[in-house]
Amino acid sequence: MALIVHKYGGTSMGSTERIRNVAKRVAKWARAGHQMVVVPSAMSGETNRLLGLAKELSPASTTPALLRELDMIASTGEQVSVGLLAIALQAEGLEAVSYTGWQVPVRTDSSFTKARIQSIDDARVRADLAAGRVVIIAGFQGLDENDNITTLGRGGSDTSAVAVAAAMKAHECLIYTDVDGVYTTDPRIVPEARRLATVSFEEMLEMASLGSKVLQIRSVEFAGKYRVPLRVLSSFTPWDIDIAEEARSGTLITFEEDEKMEQAVVAGIAFNRDEAKITVLGVPDKPGIAFQILGPVAEANIDIDVIIQNVSHDGKTDFSFTVHRNDYARTIELLNTKVVPQTAATNVVGDPKICKVSIVGIGMRSHVGVASKMFRVLADEGINIQMITTSEIKTSVVIDEKYMELAVRALHKAFDLDQPTG
Amino acid sequence: MALIVHKYGGTSMGSTERIRNVAKRVAKWARAGHQMVVVPSAMSGETNRLLGLAKELSPASTTPALLRELDMIASTGEQVSVGLLAIALQAEGLEAVSYTGWQVPVRTDSSFTKARIQSIDDARVRADLAAGRVVIIAGFQGLDENDNITTLGRGGSDTSAVAVAAAMKAHECLIYTDVDGVYTTDPRIVPEARRLATVSFEEMLEMASLGSKVLQIRSVEFAGKYRVPLRVLSSFTPWDIDIAEEARSGTLITFEEDEKMEQAVVAGIAFNRDEAKITVLGVPDKPGIAFQILGPVAEANIDIDVIIQNVSHDGKTDFSFTVHRNDYARTIELLNTKVVPQTAATNVVGDPKICKVSIVGIGMRSHVGVASKMFRVLADEGINIQMITTSEIKTSVVIDEKYMELAVRALHKAFDLDQPTG
Repeated sequence: MALIVHKYGGTSMGSTERIRNVAKRVAKWARAGHQMVVVPSAMSGETNRLLGLAKELSPASTTPALLRELDMIASTGEQVSVGLLAIALQAEGLEAVSYTGWQVPVRTDSSFTKARIQSIDDARVRADLAAGRVVIIAGFQGLDENDNITTLGRGGSDTSAVAVAAAMKAHECLIYTDVDGVYTTDPRIVPEARRLATVSFEEMLEMASLGSKVLQIRSVEFAGKYRVPLRVLSSFTPWDIDIAEEARSGTLITFEEDEKMEQAVVAGIAFNRDEAKITVLGVPDKPGIAFQILGPVAEANIDIDVIIQNVSHDGKTDFSFTVHRNDYARTIELLNTKVVPQTAATNVVGDPKICKVSIVGIGMRSHVGVASKMFRVLADEGINIQMITTSEIKTSVVIDEKYMELAVRALHKAFDLDQPTG
Repeated sequence: MALIVHKYGGTSMGSTERIRNVAKRVAKWARAGHQMVVVPSAMSGETNRLLGLAKELSPASTTPALLRELDMIASTGEQVSVGLLAIALQAEGLEAVSYTGWQVPVRTDSSFTKARIQSIDDARVRADLAAGRVVIIAGFQGLDENDNITTLGRGGSDTSAVAVAAAMKAHECLIYTDVDGVYTTDPRIVPEARRLATVSFEEMLEMASLGSKVLQIRSVEFAGKYRVPLRVLSSFTPWDIDIAEEARSGTLITFEEDEKMEQAVVAGIAFNRDEAKITVLGVPDKPGIAFQILGPVAEANIDIDVIIQNVSHDGKTDFSFTVHRNDYARTIELLNTKVVPQTAATNVVGDPKICKVSIVGIGMRSHVGVASKMFRVLADEGINIQMITTSEIKTSVVIDEKYMELAVRALHKAFDLDQPTG
């Protein structure tokens, strides 16, 4: 008897047959006495179809006016999903009502196509729950202060679900997806990869941001900030699986470190080949130079991941960072027009054919030599490391894209991730 | 230099290529100095696709809760259209912004799937026009008092366009459609059918309601009530046709009778095979019986068209009416459960295989013998008349569906509609 939030991805919502199965699963939880809020994604392929139409009409433009229209268009995918799921639940004999983002409302900033949730008014949803209704809320979308529709970016429905769970102080937020939990690494690369029964919030944050792609990173940030118990589990189990068994399945993202009996040093290997590296050569090493370089990039709403600046020689230094591969050409152009002239940099060079491989683990905090072991493993495989960054619980290297599988497999084995933990 | 409303149907919006042509046409008008508001329909086939998905999940239900979800789903078709058209206009170099029904807002009652517009707040639209933007408003949809999305029924985008034109006191509302105007009858049935350069509002009202299907009837009512100059014209002319020529094309719906030099007695032949006839047999002929029979039907939100009650015999009478063919089974069931027991009627009978054929013309007001000529023409063709209704400017008969084409062709010829007017 608790308030539970379910989130279903595009694959789970991919056909009316699958939507019917989602409805049966939700109905099972509702009949067990839970108050249910459900956040579905658009039917798989729908967002791409819609944005494809937009792209046919305007292949290159990225003005704010255009981005506003993309959100107008893309948000309809989830709107269709919520309506269909409400109908499927009604056909199961439950009372169900659907809401778009603006109807709740889910308030966001005005960064079209990458908006951030600012607040959620749960009054209407609570009234429906109190009246015994299942409430279905469109993920991925919100409303800015001028009542424009916004979207949260790819995977944004995860964030919507967690934000709703946080606002409503839900007992647990269950993210149903096409994988059955969080793995030590991608099983498609390493067949020996194991599912983690629990993973810490910090590890999950690093895994998600580094490309494990199970959850949108902002959803994990949200879950961490508001301490929303979050479970990733499979939507492919039969809908009539025993509810107690279902509630224990998948991977639980935990906030208390001592929940784990014994902490593995490395929890998982993450990787990402969506990035491109860019280096601004020969910039004067003086205060404010990092902002001079990255300010225009941030202003253009381009996300920056790894940033590296090494010690200087003769008052000059090289400044490197990575961006999403889709932003590569635009960033290079931006640097050449807005940064090189102003900073007297020598040149801008880059490479879109790189990948980032990371080892992640809370245990790294109290274990020395983890990073150097990683470097040794890569050296043994003859893989050259192009960039290195580290944080408290992860170490990442940028390497040539073609070595990615080799690196991930070697690291997974070297850190004993294919062995069950004690 | 005027405020002009354009409305484009689903065929005109049927592909990105066609949307690009709509954008070029609108841009031509905007560049000629007009303030432009555009109301597009959903891309052709989209509304059916969306409602088809809903139907797979709940084939039979028509509860208010379900109808609410249908509107949630169906309204997305127009939302996608407005975003795509805004993008196409931006690609043409114009400033353009799109709005859903709720963003304007267009306020309606809560009759889901058949809502009626109550008010339009044009403040935001006016501000955009003043700033030099083309404004695109989603047709077919609105917002009820509880902020639920509503839709206006099939063809509702026409009504949206006229209502916007009325609210903004537009100079003219141009309805671009896949026919090039209003014809004396359907050219697919009668190849000699002619386009009318003008048609009176009253005639148009009767033509639309009787099935000419060029415009949704409520849009014509709206146009009449608020005296919105309304023009039906083809969206298939090249977009770069001379604007003065385009502004004179199609059919203008007029409000002043004396605009026509010589009034034809009959303006056109309308027909409709979407209806079914129902007769409640042997009801007591007493005050209130019509309401007792039709009250439950109206309550179920079923539209009634023709109603006939003839004189009674022995205190009993037969009560006949027509409904949309889709509502036939539901109406019969409703009458058997809610009306027959209460009224002591003998039986309910009906026939969904009928059609209605009407002659329409303002000239009928001042010419006698028009109806009797119609009956003679049908008799000459051996067509039995099942029901007759008349109004000031039309006479309608219900006949067996199989005689429809024959009746329409014979009447079109008999009333000289294939001859150019003087």
